[in-house]
Amino acid sequence: MSESVGESVTAAILVIGDEILSGRTKDKNIGHIAEYVTALGIDLREVRVVPDVEDEIVAAVNALRARYTYLFTTGGIGPTHDDITADSVARALGRAIDVDPRAVAMMRERYAEGELNAARLRMARIPEGAALIENPISKAPGFMVENVIVMAGVPSIMQAMLDAVAPRLRTGARMQVETLDAGGLAEGSYAEALGALAGDHPGVSIGSYPSFTGGGFRNQIVLRGRDPAAVAAAADAVRALLSGLTSDKAPI
Amino acid sequence: MSESVGESVTAAILVIGDEILSGRTKDKNIGHIAEYVTALGIDLREVRVVPDVEDEIVAAVNALRARYTYLFTTGGIGPTHDDITADSVARALGRAIDVDPRAVAMMRERYAEGELNAARLRMARIPEGAALIENPISKAPGFMVENVIVMAGVPSIMQAMLDAVAPRLRTGARMQVETLDAGGLAEGSYAEALGALAGDHPGVSIGSYPSFTGGGFRNQIVLRGRDPAAVAAAADAVRALLSGLTSDKAPI
Repeated sequence: MSESVGESVTAAILVIGDEILSGRTKDKNIGHIAEYVTALGIDLREVRVVPDVEDEIVAAVNALRARYTYLFTTGGIGPTHDDITADSVARALGRAIDVDPRAVAMMRERYAEGELNAARLRMARIPEGAALIENPISKAPGFMVENVIVMAGVPSIMQAMLDAVAPRLRTGARMQVETLDAGGLAEGSYAEALGALAGDHPGVSIGSYPSFTGGGFRNQIVLRGRDPAAVAAAADAVRALLSGLTSDKAPI
Repeated sequence: MSESVGESVTAAILVIGDEILSGRTKDKNIGHIAEYVTALGIDLREVRVVPDVEDEIVAAVNALRARYTYLFTTGGIGPTHDDITADSVARALGRAIDVDPRAVAMMRERYAEGELNAARLRMARIPEGAALIENPISKAPGFMVENVIVMAGVPSIMQAMLDAVAPRLRTGARMQVETLDAGGLAEGSYAEALGALAGDHPGVSIGSYPSFTGGGFRNQIVLRGRDPAAVAAAADAVRALLSGLTSDKAPI
């Protein structure tokens, strides 16, 4: 139901790391990027999580960069042997990769000469032609090459990199969002009428989202679209629909 | 670095829902399923998030079910028009789908006769040949058909369904995990030696995971493998490596 009005700017996220797939680390980056790019008028259309395996990363990068305006990756750009994102992205794009003097210069701000050992210099490996993305926290940069934006996995660093790269991105018309509380109404008591209403408002995406807390459901209806008047008209229609209903006692 | 020893049981997760991609809802299911199946000896190898668009769901279901032992889906099985998971899975598998009397019987435990309207009966639409998965909270069941396990998106319901379906799953040898604290050592001070050590212990996956809190990094080294003796030997080697190091003052 994400039909967009006009030309849209789209994105995907690729989360790279065994630690997410084993459940050891709970991802916090997907939700942050999703909210962030949505606010910029960029439609996030797909997310994938893959392990620290070069063939998997290359295949996912190529599938996603071909399909969406931007691909954001998180994770795998540290100094250890399991940090293979930069090399994998270079391979996916058929670009050379080497230690980049610009990245080394950034790292020198926080690393003494003797500290820049071989492992740390891996963090300065940047594919040919990439633009660097500043890392105010630990200095080793992310990068943007073609439409692929490579960021750290540590959330605070990823967030700083996203702030740094955002002004360089093409953005679309911002999505207008209206959220209506369905009160104590069970979803099943309005679902059929809401489906018909959604069919009557094709430029507006209408979702119904239950949350279960304290032994009961609480539902919200979210309307999204790029045309403010269309969203407002659909929201009025949903309000009218809800106000005419009383809930039964069914769970959903 | 997830090379497994012996025959492995693998899985993927497909999260279905516009609300995750817009950032409105922060997913809590990926981390839960990841930890849960890992504890069962099932290797989670990939995750995807797709919107409420039938073609996208069908394509992802077919890509993932072909590649892994099991595919878990979450979301899109409620009563509203944007709940299209069951029909999409049926289409992906080339199976008929209709209201299933077994599902209706389960729902009757909590829904009065008059409450089972057309929208709620959509929750009883189950692909032909599927086994149902009980839902103790709101009764409308999930299902398992071939190797695809379809669960709710609301975390408490999803968790109950996962508990219900787990005993039916084939499981692998459990992963042995050792987590070593790297203390105040910067990753870059042990990265090169750790990479060499990882090469010497091919049956063990070794990851280094930084977390950034309170202005400094804290790193953990996680060793995973199916052979307890191999994991223990690698852990001893990592301990010896770490104890011989003193950290410099570099950030990573």
